[in-house]
Amino acid sequence: MGVDAAVPDLQVTRERLRRLREQAAARDVAACVVTPGSDLRYLVGVGGSSFERLTSLVVPSDDALPMRFVSPALEFAGLGHIPFDELGVEVRTWVDGEDAAGLAVEGLPGGRLAVSDMTPALHTLALGGRHGGELTLAGPVVRELRMRKDPAELAELRRAGEAIDRVHARVHEWLRPGRTEADVAADIAAAIVEEGHTVAEFVIVGSGPNGASPHHSVSDRVIERGDVVVVDIGGPVPSGYNSDSTRTYAVGEPAEADVVRSYDALQAAQQAAVDVVRPGVTCEQVDQAARAVLNDAGLGERFIHRTGHGIGLDVHEEPYIVAGNDLALEAGMTFSVEPGVYLAGRWGARIEDIVAVTDDGVESLNVRPHDLVVL
Amino acid sequence: MGVDAAVPDLQVTRERLRRLREQAAARDVAACVVTPGSDLRYLVGVGGSSFERLTSLVVPSDDALPMRFVSPALEFAGLGHIPFDELGVEVRTWVDGEDAAGLAVEGLPGGRLAVSDMTPALHTLALGGRHGGELTLAGPVVRELRMRKDPAELAELRRAGEAIDRVHARVHEWLRPGRTEADVAADIAAAIVEEGHTVAEFVIVGSGPNGASPHHSVSDRVIERGDVVVVDIGGPVPSGYNSDSTRTYAVGEPAEADVVRSYDALQAAQQAAVDVVRPGVTCEQVDQAARAVLNDAGLGERFIHRTGHGIGLDVHEEPYIVAGNDLALEAGMTFSVEPGVYLAGRWGARIEDIVAVTDDGVESLNVRPHDLVVL
Repeated sequence: MGVDAAVPDLQVTRERLRRLREQAAARDVAACVVTPGSDLRYLVGVGGSSFERLTSLVVPSDDALPMRFVSPALEFAGLGHIPFDELGVEVRTWVDGEDAAGLAVEGLPGGRLAVSDMTPALHTLALGGRHGGELTLAGPVVRELRMRKDPAELAELRRAGEAIDRVHARVHEWLRPGRTEADVAADIAAAIVEEGHTVAEFVIVGSGPNGASPHHSVSDRVIERGDVVVVDIGGPVPSGYNSDSTRTYAVGEPAEADVVRSYDALQAAQQAAVDVVRPGVTCEQVDQAARAVLNDAGLGERFIHRTGHGIGLDVHEEPYIVAGNDLALEAGMTFSVEPGVYLAGRWGARIEDIVAVTDDGVESLNVRPHDLVVL
Repeated sequence: MGVDAAVPDLQVTRERLRRLREQAAARDVAACVVTPGSDLRYLVGVGGSSFERLTSLVVPSDDALPMRFVSPALEFAGLGHIPFDELGVEVRTWVDGEDAAGLAVEGLPGGRLAVSDMTPALHTLALGGRHGGELTLAGPVVRELRMRKDPAELAELRRAGEAIDRVHARVHEWLRPGRTEADVAADIAAAIVEEGHTVAEFVIVGSGPNGASPHHSVSDRVIERGDVVVVDIGGPVPSGYNSDSTRTYAVGEPAEADVVRSYDALQAAQQAAVDVVRPGVTCEQVDQAARAVLNDAGLGERFIHRTGHGIGLDVHEEPYIVAGNDLALEAGMTFSVEPGVYLAGRWGARIEDIVAVTDDGVESLNVRPHDLVVL
């Protein structure tokens, strides 16, 4: 259940752990408690899995103190291939009835204790109670490492982008009037795996009025001629890095009269946002670039979400491309650019590519055409 | 993505919410903040899905105060079928940039704020910061409701048990020398869905030495003649209630000499634990009944986990059948009885049935034979 194998090179792992300590110290954090998920996978190559039993990698900011890996004894066999000795990480296994949170924080200095953002409250409160210091999030510490992808990570995101592009290239095989969204989604999900992902993490097929709900998944609605259909799909390749790409299809000529004009504005908005991406531009400036085009077209009120989200080992991670985020882009950052328009009760459309910030501009990791795909 | 449809009857939902308020008041909790997952599904029939955006059902213990459902606007369409008006629940949607945690706790009295056990730290700390009171877990409040299953829930758990029994009855079709654990697991996963589950939530195929690691999942190890193989499988049926059952198979006569004697002791231990189950017996007494038999057989050190876990909308929930848990069993409680023996580097075995406490004893929801299945 969920133990993954791809372990980064020992040198890479060492360097990531060193930088984590450095960032924790810079943020006045006494120690980071990293629990199962993508932070753990990023640091030591194995994400583990989180149940009611606590697994954690404890990284004090003071590099005179040892790092510690705390694991339920019965789950440790799946983690034993991590080179703990070479990394200088003590291992402490525990059995049912022992105080796992106590083992995790034993010997740590006081001060602020940072826990992974997705740590269940069950463990968060136990860790806080045992440590006694102020609890804070490890996300802002780890994101300083994860937000800028190295060349190997960029290669994996390119691989994921190419794989999902191959799936979009085949959507015409399955999207036909008379089939349900669920039927189409099942074919797409199979293709996502065939084209090189480990799982079809998400498949949105939003036809007609369902396309106007951005997080609609699939339903038993039968697709009709004239429908506009939002297809938003992705998942991880074996290294754990994710794809995420949206195209909008029309099943024959669109039945609704305002589709063509509004879609043109959407396409221009998406391109405008991509065009401003380069180091030094802020996240909110990218958001604003898309929003300005849709505002000018009278569609500002129809664009009801942020422009994008970072992507890597998580489908949604920093940086978020949203109003109020004045973070300046840097080379190696990767995120979605995905404006949409949503006409409640009638239809919706979205165009989404993953882009990477380069030294002097932007590289798109999805390269399928942006036009409305009329089938 | 993860919005599920089975909504309990309005009367059932009302009564569950009423009892939640009552339990919260009895535990000096000012309000429960229920986040996506099985607690939310239990209360209002929809589990939702948890990303970085906060969704929560806020239930004050004071029934003069309104309940409130806080949802990202772009995810609300998938939740709008919950009968909020009839339940007396205010709805507050929010868009990116708004203070969702602030909306959730607005107007609540001070005191202890209880959050769902699986709430990500990201939301837990934001809610605590906005409210200002002491944070505690909602698990102990909700478990008072969820731990005792009503007849409709028991019927769903029986349905799940029958479905997984049908899968175990077919394992002989796939478990053969020369195939990898992963090959066998793929066939089993397909059968889990064919037999009535919505997904194959977990499939453990632990052959030879891999069987000695209780939470081993699957690997590319090729199954050999003489291997002992632990097959631990389950998942939810459409209502969300789970199956979980383990049988141990031998591919031809076991190669290791100590298998038959040790397995006999294991089978006796599992039966001894089931035999003591009835209202009034404590969880740790059930654990002890299995452990005593294995201790007497000199295998106590080889049984490295608790005897069982509750099951319902979660695969692992209260009550836990573990040393130190003096909770007295009551009619309607459902849990696994799953002792195992693990011979590191060589082989392992486990027998697991789900049982329900009845008014005067026990009902097993899995009925496949307990013998080592020699294929």
